[in-house]
Amino acid sequence: MPVNLSLPQKDQLKPVKGFEMGTAEAGIKKANRKDVLVMTLAPGSQLAGVFTLNRFCAAPVQVCREHLALDGAKGEIRALVVNTGNANAGTGERGMRDALATCNALAKELNLNPEQILPFSTGVILEPLPIEKLITALPKAVADLNGDHWLDAAQAIMTTDTQPKASSVSIQTPAGPITITGICKGAGMIHPNMATMLGFIATDAGFAPELLSQLTQEVADLSFNAITIDGDTSTNDSFIIMATGQSSVQIKSIDDPSFEVVRAALIDLARKLAQMIVRDGEGATKFMTIEVLGGKTKEECRLVAEAVAHSPLVKTAFFASDPNLGRILAAIGYAGIADLDVNQVQMWLGDVWVAKNGGRNPDYQEADGQRVMQAAEITVKIDLGRGTAQQTMWTCDLSHDYVSINADYRS
Amino acid sequence: MPVNLSLPQKDQLKPVKGFEMGTAEAGIKKANRKDVLVMTLAPGSQLAGVFTLNRFCAAPVQVCREHLALDGAKGEIRALVVNTGNANAGTGERGMRDALATCNALAKELNLNPEQILPFSTGVILEPLPIEKLITALPKAVADLNGDHWLDAAQAIMTTDTQPKASSVSIQTPAGPITITGICKGAGMIHPNMATMLGFIATDAGFAPELLSQLTQEVADLSFNAITIDGDTSTNDSFIIMATGQSSVQIKSIDDPSFEVVRAALIDLARKLAQMIVRDGEGATKFMTIEVLGGKTKEECRLVAEAVAHSPLVKTAFFASDPNLGRILAAIGYAGIADLDVNQVQMWLGDVWVAKNGGRNPDYQEADGQRVMQAAEITVKIDLGRGTAQQTMWTCDLSHDYVSINADYRS
Repeated sequence: MPVNLSLPQKDQLKPVKGFEMGTAEAGIKKANRKDVLVMTLAPGSQLAGVFTLNRFCAAPVQVCREHLALDGAKGEIRALVVNTGNANAGTGERGMRDALATCNALAKELNLNPEQILPFSTGVILEPLPIEKLITALPKAVADLNGDHWLDAAQAIMTTDTQPKASSVSIQTPAGPITITGICKGAGMIHPNMATMLGFIATDAGFAPELLSQLTQEVADLSFNAITIDGDTSTNDSFIIMATGQSSVQIKSIDDPSFEVVRAALIDLARKLAQMIVRDGEGATKFMTIEVLGGKTKEECRLVAEAVAHSPLVKTAFFASDPNLGRILAAIGYAGIADLDVNQVQMWLGDVWVAKNGGRNPDYQEADGQRVMQAAEITVKIDLGRGTAQQTMWTCDLSHDYVSINADYRS
Repeated sequence: MPVNLSLPQKDQLKPVKGFEMGTAEAGIKKANRKDVLVMTLAPGSQLAGVFTLNRFCAAPVQVCREHLALDGAKGEIRALVVNTGNANAGTGERGMRDALATCNALAKELNLNPEQILPFSTGVILEPLPIEKLITALPKAVADLNGDHWLDAAQAIMTTDTQPKASSVSIQTPAGPITITGICKGAGMIHPNMATMLGFIATDAGFAPELLSQLTQEVADLSFNAITIDGDTSTNDSFIIMATGQSSVQIKSIDDPSFEVVRAALIDLARKLAQMIVRDGEGATKFMTIEVLGGKTKEECRLVAEAVAHSPLVKTAFFASDPNLGRILAAIGYAGIADLDVNQVQMWLGDVWVAKNGGRNPDYQEADGQRVMQAAEITVKIDLGRGTAQQTMWTCDLSHDYVSINADYRS
């Protein structure tokens, strides 16, 4: 029961010139479902990625990092391959061999070097990847390559997502029009283990070297790194921006007149995708926005937003539509700001001023809190009263269905 | 449905010479239940405490800190007063006035200075304390003072605890026999908001100044600071050790021949009490011990143990008796050890070696993991393979009942 999440329409997902996708059924975990996605980039494209910081990162994540570090020494990155149903994580040396074998096989199909391929996996961990099934499916996925297959691609990377997640936009810049289209998959796996997040965005804009890397990190921080379902950081989380450069928009530096509009559009699209993951969070019934402002640093605002967003007590109160708001104050208090003066803290639930100068606002009426809590989308605003930094995070509530989904591993 | 937790028997809870308890019904939140506890210490007693680090700490916690800092300037600490039903937290200046008024009222009853009193509250936060009801009940609690009222005391501090929690031991030391008895209340409130933990231990041993403070911090770290239910740190958590010194055992320094045996007995009793809180954790169906060893520092072992113990994915898997053990590796990986070499990591579930050198142990059989998972008490052992430090934590699973209890605020 996703929160205000509509199915993407195929005709709204615009092709990006120089970028193609093909899917296939490999039967990695389940029969009769698309579980392999191949993506290709035309020569001259650029790519940048942000990966999980989990030390138990999956073999494909390690291979991605190595191939990106080679930085075109053996040719630029030209293709990506994703499988669902198995994360190839906690799989030791065999996992590395399997990830490399996947690159080798796809390289042969596409007449590239293996180092020009990035592999991605999502699914159950601690289980060996059924590498033969995956390799056998690659020619079918390659034969299916087409710029118009965004919806198929979104479907092929799903795990326990209840819906495919995709978004697309065409914008005008001073240098001409560009298209940005992206897909992602989210938090939620039943037989698999992780709240793995994968996100892929393609655009026909072009960027100076280095600029795309910086921009990708910034976009990730403001979107996929600003959401949380249950605070568990996956072994496989990956976010990639690909720029084919096949439009008239070629951004040389951040002073380029087109930069700001492209940056804003990328952030907006990535946020939409990231928020789709929250809306489809395991068992989610509420979509919560946690805005923290008035901090000395962005980092301390983030600590507070995370503490509130991760608190099981806060999340169950939202599930119950219950303005049990002392729980939010408690989370602010243990977030880790050692010198926080709680007498400067204000808190609002929607438009209702609940906590004033660290205590209950004398004008606060429980009925007002109750009214806001009934909504499916709720904003908590916290002013720390000690600076000008701010940070926003998005999360969902903690429901019975979360426990059911995550406990119900055998089904 | 607490996990292997039996009701304390009144005749097993031994009096501690120089220490008395009295309870009363103040009707702070509910009628017809003991909700006020007064404890008194004979002259010459010592007391040390460890309090929540939450910046939104409750008014009584602030008053405790102030009165302990006075350190006998206006007389030694001679009495404690605890109410349940209201945490007096998030209550601003009025909260401080109410906490001080409680001390004033009890001081008059006992003919002490207010600075000789420590106040404690547990219950709903963001609500003003019904101070008149509390003060009215104090004479009744004082009239009830008796060294034999441990079980009443344990009952009077309960919130959503399903059982009173108390333990007692008499031991021989080289300097003679001593008694140690303690009570606590735990994680779990329905109408209240917090997983507040309160723990009080009394002994008739005596200690040199400073020694009891150091020992109390150490005991807390090895017991109450080593448990977690949901990772939410309360506004009111407090742990107190009281030493009346009315036995022949007077410990002058850590070189005293009695020190080690007293220290070990205090740690053992505090651990039993702390583990009772986990066994009675909200919705708990499993008691989990997380042992982390082979770390470079105790702190990094603690980070790993906490990450595993807090992970909702790990906790729901244990609820389901499901050896979904990749979730544990993932939690180890994101615990925050930046230079962790996962290839050195070993993991056991009970006696079953699951992860070997960072990957699945080739000899691991799912049926073995399944067998261990069926038990009500399960130990996860993690060897980081990088040092000799270790840390153990105790936690419980995350069940449907946890969500029900915490969502069901109005009932």
